[in-house]
Amino acid sequence: MNLRFGIIGYGFMGHEHMTLLSDFDGIDVIAICDREADQMDDAPEGVAKYTDAADLLARDDIDVVIISANNNQHLKLVKMAAAAKKNIICEKPVALSIPDLEEMEKAVAENGVKFTVHQQRRFDPDYRTMKNVFDSDELGDIYTVQTGLYGYNGNMHDWHIYPEQGGGMMYDWGVHLIDQMLYMIPGKITSVFADVRNVINEQVDDYFKVLLMFENGITAEVELGTYFLKDEDKWFERHWFMGGNKGSAYVDGFHPEGKIVHTAHLLQNAGHGRTMTAAGPTRSFGPPSEGLILSKDIEIAQTTHRMYFENYVKAYRGEEDFLVKIPEVKRVLKVMDAARLSAKTRKSVDFEA
Amino acid sequence: MNLRFGIIGYGFMGHEHMTLLSDFDGIDVIAICDREADQMDDAPEGVAKYTDAADLLARDDIDVVIISANNNQHLKLVKMAAAAKKNIICEKPVALSIPDLEEMEKAVAENGVKFTVHQQRRFDPDYRTMKNVFDSDELGDIYTVQTGLYGYNGNMHDWHIYPEQGGGMMYDWGVHLIDQMLYMIPGKITSVFADVRNVINEQVDDYFKVLLMFENGITAEVELGTYFLKDEDKWFERHWFMGGNKGSAYVDGFHPEGKIVHTAHLLQNAGHGRTMTAAGPTRSFGPPSEGLILSKDIEIAQTTHRMYFENYVKAYRGEEDFLVKIPEVKRVLKVMDAARLSAKTRKSVDFEA
Repeated sequence: MNLRFGIIGYGFMGHEHMTLLSDFDGIDVIAICDREADQMDDAPEGVAKYTDAADLLARDDIDVVIISANNNQHLKLVKMAAAAKKNIICEKPVALSIPDLEEMEKAVAENGVKFTVHQQRRFDPDYRTMKNVFDSDELGDIYTVQTGLYGYNGNMHDWHIYPEQGGGMMYDWGVHLIDQMLYMIPGKITSVFADVRNVINEQVDDYFKVLLMFENGITAEVELGTYFLKDEDKWFERHWFMGGNKGSAYVDGFHPEGKIVHTAHLLQNAGHGRTMTAAGPTRSFGPPSEGLILSKDIEIAQTTHRMYFENYVKAYRGEEDFLVKIPEVKRVLKVMDAARLSAKTRKSVDFEA
Repeated sequence: MNLRFGIIGYGFMGHEHMTLLSDFDGIDVIAICDREADQMDDAPEGVAKYTDAADLLARDDIDVVIISANNNQHLKLVKMAAAAKKNIICEKPVALSIPDLEEMEKAVAENGVKFTVHQQRRFDPDYRTMKNVFDSDELGDIYTVQTGLYGYNGNMHDWHIYPEQGGGMMYDWGVHLIDQMLYMIPGKITSVFADVRNVINEQVDDYFKVLLMFENGITAEVELGTYFLKDEDKWFERHWFMGGNKGSAYVDGFHPEGKIVHTAHLLQNAGHGRTMTAAGPTRSFGPPSEGLILSKDIEIAQTTHRMYFENYVKAYRGEEDFLVKIPEVKRVLKVMDAARLSAKTRKSVDFEA
C-alpha cells in the first residue's frame, strides 16, 4: 500500500514536493496545508486543503508529513506532527539552532515517529560525480575540495530576507553545501574558518566562504555569493575543483560536465644547476608543452532528487537505512554555528579537535 | 651619467636582469658574478666576470649591485655589498626571516647605502589592472579580492626544491602575491589563515592558500598550486576576481583580459508572499534573464617590469621615492611567517590587531 503524505507549507518547496510526488510510485499526497489559502489554488484536484496544520495533522489516514513551511515554523510543526504520531520529513535547515533540534529529537523520540530531513542535494549529479571521483583512487592523495555557487539577484526571495524567519543563504544553501562536504569527506574537522557577509541584503547573509580543515589533511571550501558576477556561460551554476597529488578533477553546471586531468610527467630537472628558458620571468607557469596535459571526461553520476524519496519509501519499510540521519544534520548545524562565530571574530574556530 | 651596475648571482633571474638592462637608458651593467663560471658563458661581451662576489665588490666603479643569488645567500651578500659601500637591489624574498632582514637593515644603515628589493611584480599588468579597478569606485564597497596561479610542473626548478636554500613557492611567488595585495589594499590586517602544503615536493611547499582579513572589512585571498590542473585555455596563468556590492571584476592571463560586470537591477520581489518559478529547485541561480548582466572590457594597465628600474634610476637621483620600501617587504615576510604558523596549527593567526 502506498504511503499517504501530507505537505505542510505549500510555498516554493511545497509545490516542488507535489510536482515530484504526484507520479511517484509508493507515495500518495492526499493533503496539503498553507496559512494562505490562495497559495493552494493550483493544487491538483482531489487533494485536501487546510489552512491550519492542526486540522491536517488530526487526520488518522496520513502516514508521513513533509514540513516545508518557513524555517522558523519547523520547530513548532515538528512537535505538533510528532504529538499527532505522524512520521516526519522536515525541510532543511531542519532547525535554526542546536537546542531547537534537540527539542525536536525529544519530541519524535517520545512519540516513536520516524524523523529525517530533506537533504536531497546529496543526489545532485554534480556533487555525486565529484563524490565518485573522491571515492576512487584517480587523484592520489586529495588535498583540496572546493565548490562554488554564484548568483546575480543580490536579494533573496520572499521570507528569506528576514532573519527572524530563518532567512539568509547560509541557512538556505549553506546547509546543502556543507552537508555535501561532510557526506563526502570522512573524519573529524579540526577547525572552521569562515567569511559570512551581508553584501546586498541588510539583514541576512548573502555571501559566505567556509573552510573546513579535516583531521585527515583535506581542506574543504564552500563559497556562495548572491552577487558574484561573471559574464561567462554557466557561471551562475555549480563549480567544483578537487586537487590531488596524482591529478585534478573539475565539474561545472547543474547539468554537469567535467574532466579528470593528469600530466604526462612532472618536472624532472630538479636537483642541481640552473636551467634557462625563453618563457619569461617564470618557468613554472604559462602554456604547458604539447602533450603534457592529459584529460578525460568524467562519467557523470545519473542521480536525481527522486532518489531521496525512493530511499525514504524503502527505509520506511525497513529495507534500508534512511539516507539522512539526525546526527549528520546536527553536525551540519554545528559547522554553520562555527562558521558564523568565525566570521564574527574573524578567527578560526576549533571543532571536534 | 649612467648608473653602473653589477649583478651577483647569474642564474635565471641574473640573466633576466641582464636582458632587461642591456638596453636600458640610465643603467650600464658592467660586471657579473656567479660561483659557477659556466653560468656566465652567454654573457654579453665587455662585461667583467667574477666567480667571487668579493672581487666584484672590490671594484670602485660600481654604483649598484643586484643580488640575485640563491635566497639563502642574500644575507651574506647584502652585508658584503653594504660593507663595500655599494647600493643594493636585492631579489625577493629579500630575507628568509625577520631577524635576517633586520641584520641587513643594520648593515645598510651603518654604511649609508641605498637598499631596496626587486618586487617588480607590482608592475604586472594583470595586477595593475585590478588595482586600478580597486582604486576606482566602479564596484561599490569591495568585499573580496581573490587571485590564483596554477601550474603543471609539480616540482620546482633547480635550488627551489631545497628548504635550506630558501626554496618553495611561498618564498618564490607567495612573496609577490602577498606583496601585491598589501600594496593594493590599505589598512591593517587583523588575522591570517592559511593552508600551506607539500603536495608533490617532499621538502618545500608547493601549494598555498592565504586569507588576509583586513580591518577595513575586505578579505584578500591568494592561492597557488604547482599541481592544480585544468585543461582550459590560459588556466596556467594569473586569475583575479574582485567582488563589490555594485559589481564584480575579473582578469585572467599574463597578457591580461578582463571584464567589469554589473547587473541591470537586483531582485525586487522581496517583501512578503511567495513566488513560484519554473526554474527548478532554485530561483537564485541558473541562467540570468536576457539583458540582466551588463559587462564591459576593463582597460588593461600598460605597465611593464622596466618601470621598476625607471623608478629606481629616478629615486637614486632623488627625483622620487623608491617604489619598494623595506618596511613593506618586512610586512610581507611577517605575513608569510603568520601563514606558515597558521598552516602548521590549522588555526588563524592574529596579525596587527
